[in-house]
Amino acid sequence: MDIVAGSAYLPERVADNNYFSQLTGRAPEWFERATGIARRRRAGPEENTNTMAIAAVALLQESSGLDLSDIDLVVGASYTPWDTVGTMAHAVQRHFGLAGAKAIYLSTACSSFINAMELAAAYIETGRCRRALIVAAEHNSLYADDRDEQAGHLWGDAATAMVVEAHVPGGAAALRVLDITSRGLADIGMGPGGVYLQPRSAGLVMPYGKDVFQHACREMETTARTMLGRHGLSIADIRLLVPHQANDRIITQIAGRLGVDDAQVARTIHELGNTGCASTAITLLRHQHLLTPGDVVMLVTFGGGYSTGCALLRCER
Amino acid sequence: MDIVAGSAYLPERVADNNYFSQLTGRAPEWFERATGIARRRRAGPEENTNTMAIAAVALLQESSGLDLSDIDLVVGASYTPWDTVGTMAHAVQRHFGLAGAKAIYLSTACSSFINAMELAAAYIETGRCRRALIVAAEHNSLYADDRDEQAGHLWGDAATAMVVEAHVPGGAAALRVLDITSRGLADIGMGPGGVYLQPRSAGLVMPYGKDVFQHACREMETTARTMLGRHGLSIADIRLLVPHQANDRIITQIAGRLGVDDAQVARTIHELGNTGCASTAITLLRHQHLLTPGDVVMLVTFGGGYSTGCALLRCER
Repeated sequence: MDIVAGSAYLPERVADNNYFSQLTGRAPEWFERATGIARRRRAGPEENTNTMAIAAVALLQESSGLDLSDIDLVVGASYTPWDTVGTMAHAVQRHFGLAGAKAIYLSTACSSFINAMELAAAYIETGRCRRALIVAAEHNSLYADDRDEQAGHLWGDAATAMVVEAHVPGGAAALRVLDITSRGLADIGMGPGGVYLQPRSAGLVMPYGKDVFQHACREMETTARTMLGRHGLSIADIRLLVPHQANDRIITQIAGRLGVDDAQVARTIHELGNTGCASTAITLLRHQHLLTPGDVVMLVTFGGGYSTGCALLRCER
Repeated sequence: MDIVAGSAYLPERVADNNYFSQLTGRAPEWFERATGIARRRRAGPEENTNTMAIAAVALLQESSGLDLSDIDLVVGASYTPWDTVGTMAHAVQRHFGLAGAKAIYLSTACSSFINAMELAAAYIETGRCRRALIVAAEHNSLYADDRDEQAGHLWGDAATAMVVEAHVPGGAAALRVLDITSRGLADIGMGPGGVYLQPRSAGLVMPYGKDVFQHACREMETTARTMLGRHGLSIADIRLLVPHQANDRIITQIAGRLGVDDAQVARTIHELGNTGCASTAITLLRHQHLLTPGDVVMLVTFGGGYSTGCALLRCER
């Protein structure tokens, strides 16, 4: 499967550490020291996952010049949905007039983007679709409480869009998906109790941050090693590692566990915070200019619930 | 793909038309005359989509004696989620210890069950999984307002579970999925504005009921005819039609448009109301005893957003 176009949409408003300092009484420096996060973007009052997904697709169309009329699958990924009936996928289908396309919204928390890509891969492989539009958007600030000292300061809002289709040898696509896989991990640790989002009651909270941290490190390492093993690769074969951006200390731990040089680890956590399932896609797109043909990239995610996902890509041009 | 087991979970509490009469001042008879609904089940105070999905799987296990340890995909379907991070799929994975399984939650409104089945079919066909557990649960009463005169009285709560795997010729499965397909329809009519569920703001509302009604009738007919055409079948070849249970008048219209005898149309709307994406699966299971080997069954859905789905099944034993 090829990634033929991609884009990221970041809302304008910025929430810096002074803002969280004022809310919680903690020193502004504490937040960056603890998480590596300096600032996060926040959706405006008229924005939500549906509008941000549409904005991301508009940017994709603008930057790629791609004709979207032959899109026949739209997958929307998010754990912070604005609407679970008129979903992101449906909002995008309507806005861009993608008549006849399948439209599905899904969530596996911060792994959702990988699951959406895996679904697209399965639908392309079985002839259920030919060209898929994946949109991932998180509106964490809709469900999180900024005054929540434990986790309020982690969350950023953002959206991303990608178009994928069956691999065309010698084609124009810059990135090829060599492999993609996912796994539910609800049976380990605190599982669905570690971090959760109950739209009608608790909102987005992380009562067991330490459990999430520990399992994120361990499971992203295991997932990455399993993927390497499947392809007879060693970590030295990976030009760029794109881990889920939840916390800079998790990213540093994974890099250390895998023995990856810091320069090979892509980060947006400092500027964007945890943008949920949009994080790996946005981080990939922001580092794509560093790649040269033949470079292998690994995306690895850990999501609340828990779950994990991994994609192996190759730069084609 | 075979359906090797299925179950339905109905919460105990019943909301009858006297209850809605007291809330709205309308005569109790009005509700049944307008919609065909006499009563609906309602989740108890400790219940939600996660607990109801677990209850449905427990019933499946009990009635089928099936060993769930080799389940390698759990798909949770719902537009009324309790948790979008610790999703239904994750709650089921954890409760039943389904280590190593993929876990995905999705929504395409009332079509979600068909989309979940289609996802399982694609994952089975591509070797991504071998045996999938589909759970569909709706907790409409969590998001709807019972005092909403237009739509509050439509909604029921319920859950269903099914296990599917690749077709085994001459195997023990009672039902075989011959074909399954879905389509987003957000570009037609009011699309995502017709009926929506905004968890943090409006809840579940249907501002354009007439638009929903008209498109549900038209699109379920079109979808059914397209499926028949694909297989060179006529409507007379269908032993049982299982349409989405939203409103008895829609069901009667579809039967009329397709020229199906009323006795061949499966209904649970009278007893259960609109149980969202669980409705077609529950209605199928409740009418399965009427089938004899060789009988062909058609499930057809219409979901808010809009979307449609269709499955063609055959009774194998």
